[in-house]
Amino acid sequence: MSRVTELLGSRYPIIQGAMGVICNPELVAAVSEAGAFGLLATAFTRYPEIVRSQAKATKQLTDKPFGANLFVMNPLAPKFAEILAVEGIKSVTVSGGSPKELIPMLRDMGIKVIVVVPAVDVARAAEEAGVDAIVAEGTESGGVQGRKASSTMVLVPAVVDAVNVPVIAAGGIADSRGYRAAFALGAEGVQMGTRFIPTKECIAHANYKETILESRETGTGLVDMGRFRIRALRTPLVEKMLKGKEATDRAFEVEAIEASWLKGDLEAGVLPSGEVAGLISEISFVKDVIKEIVSTNRE
Amino acid sequence: MSRVTELLGSRYPIIQGAMGVICNPELVAAVSEAGAFGLLATAFTRYPEIVRSQAKATKQLTDKPFGANLFVMNPLAPKFAEILAVEGIKSVTVSGGSPKELIPMLRDMGIKVIVVVPAVDVARAAEEAGVDAIVAEGTESGGVQGRKASSTMVLVPAVVDAVNVPVIAAGGIADSRGYRAAFALGAEGVQMGTRFIPTKECIAHANYKETILESRETGTGLVDMGRFRIRALRTPLVEKMLKGKEATDRAFEVEAIEASWLKGDLEAGVLPSGEVAGLISEISFVKDVIKEIVSTNRE
Repeated sequence: MSRVTELLGSRYPIIQGAMGVICNPELVAAVSEAGAFGLLATAFTRYPEIVRSQAKATKQLTDKPFGANLFVMNPLAPKFAEILAVEGIKSVTVSGGSPKELIPMLRDMGIKVIVVVPAVDVARAAEEAGVDAIVAEGTESGGVQGRKASSTMVLVPAVVDAVNVPVIAAGGIADSRGYRAAFALGAEGVQMGTRFIPTKECIAHANYKETILESRETGTGLVDMGRFRIRALRTPLVEKMLKGKEATDRAFEVEAIEASWLKGDLEAGVLPSGEVAGLISEISFVKDVIKEIVSTNRE
Repeated sequence: MSRVTELLGSRYPIIQGAMGVICNPELVAAVSEAGAFGLLATAFTRYPEIVRSQAKATKQLTDKPFGANLFVMNPLAPKFAEILAVEGIKSVTVSGGSPKELIPMLRDMGIKVIVVVPAVDVARAAEEAGVDAIVAEGTESGGVQGRKASSTMVLVPAVVDAVNVPVIAAGGIADSRGYRAAFALGAEGVQMGTRFIPTKECIAHANYKETILESRETGTGLVDMGRFRIRALRTPLVEKMLKGKEATDRAFEVEAIEASWLKGDLEAGVLPSGEVAGLISEISFVKDVIKEIVSTNRE
C-alpha cells in the first residue's frame, strides 16, 4: 500500500485524467473496476443535475472508489462539490486554477484534494493551501497548457524536491515503460488521460480514436487560445490554426467539443491529446491497458 | 557490459553531449576519467588544426576513450573525421543533419557512428544508413531543436519500438532519477549536456554557470532562428527575443557564442540549456556528477 493508493482507496496508484465530455460513466467505472481510479470530468458541465446523474450511473456500474475533477474556472465547481459529497465521492482533483477557495469546503465535506500543477511554484502554493497530493503535469500531456511549461522528465523530480505530499506524474505516460519511468523520477503514482480515449469503453467518436492511433510522436501541436494553449492532434483544422490561418476562439467551446469529440466532425473543433498518441496503436479494453501498465509493478 | 559500453569502450553508458566551444579538453578528459564518455565538439570549429590540437590535448589528460561530435552542416566535417581517425578516436556522434554521406567514410576508418535524432522517422532512416546506435533527443534538451519535436518520455520508447540498434536517451536527464527513468523507457544509455556546464572542469564563463544554477524548471524557452529553434536560458536578451522585440539572427554566430559563453557577456548571445537547469543547484566536480548518477546503477 502506497501513500497514493491509501489516499484514493484504489488497488493501483493510477488516476484516469479528466477529459471533459468523454469521461462517460462506463469509462470511469471500467477504470475503477480494473484497480485504478476513474474520474468524472465537470469542466464543461453546465447543469448540476448532470454531475449527479453521472455519479449515480457510475455507482450502478462499480462499487470501487472513483472520483471527479473540479475545474476552478467553472463557476459551478462549488455546487458540483456538494453533489459529489452527497454521492459519496471521497477524492477529487482540482485543475484550471488555484484550489485555495475550494479546499476548506472540500475538507469540511471529508473529501481529499489532489491538485494538478504545471510548475514548482504552483506546487508549493498548493501544498501551503493544504492539498493531500499533487499531480505534476508535464507539457507533453494533452489539453490545457500554460505559457511556461516543462516536461515530465524535469517537472516531476523538481516538484518532488519541493514538496512533502505525494507527487503523481502526468504527461507522456501510456504504458508500463512510462509508469516505471515516473516512479524512477520520484513520483508515487501516475495520471493518464490520452491512453483511455482509444478504449472500447470510452464514448469518444471513432474518428477521435482513429486520429490518435494514426498519430506519430510528433503528431500533436500547441494551439494558442490566448489565455492558455491546448495540446491537440494535428488535424487539418489544427494545422491551419498553427499556421495562423484559422481562428481558434470557438474551437474549444462546448458546442465545438461535442461536435468533434462525440460526433466526429473534425472540422468543428480541436481534439486534445498528449504526445503519447504516438505510442498507442490499438483500441483496447480498459482492463488490458491497466494490466499491461502494472505488469512490472514492484509495489 | 551493455551494448553501449561495448560500443564506447567506457565503464558507464553515459555520453557527455557536444556543446560547441565549451567542450574543452579538461572537461572531456574528466568525463572519460570518471567512467563516462567525453565528446569534443566541432560544430562551430573553423580550422582543422583546432580539432587536432584538442584531441591531442585530451589524450595528454586521459588514456580512457573519448569521442567527438561531427555537425553535418559544418562543411569541414569530413576533414575533421580524417583528423579524428589519425588521433585514434573510435566513436563519434553525428548531428545537425543526415549522416548518410559521412557513414561510409567513417566506417572505412573503423569509427563507430552514433546519430542524434529528434524523431522516429529520422531514427529509422539512420538505422537504414548503417549507424551503430541512436541518441533519441527529447525537446527538453538544450540547444538546436527542430520545428516538430516530442519529449523524452514519448520519443525514447517510440524510437526503441522502431529500431534494433541501441537507443541512448537525451533530454531531461541530470541526475540518477533521470538516468533510471531513461532505462525504464527502454534506453540503453544516456547523453547529458547541460549538467556538465556547471562543473569545475568546464571552461564556460561563471555567468553562464550561475544562470543555470539560478534557473527554475520553466527557465528556458525556444528561440526561433528561422530554420531551427534553440532552447536557451531566459536571460533578458532571450526574453526580448521570445517577445519578438530583438532579432535572433546574430545571437548564435561564433562571435556571439564566444562573447557570451566564454566571456560572460549575456547581452551578446543566447545561452543554450536544457530544462534540467531547474534541477541543478551547484557547481560540481565531474566525477561527483557521474558518481551520483550511477549510484543506483543496477547494471
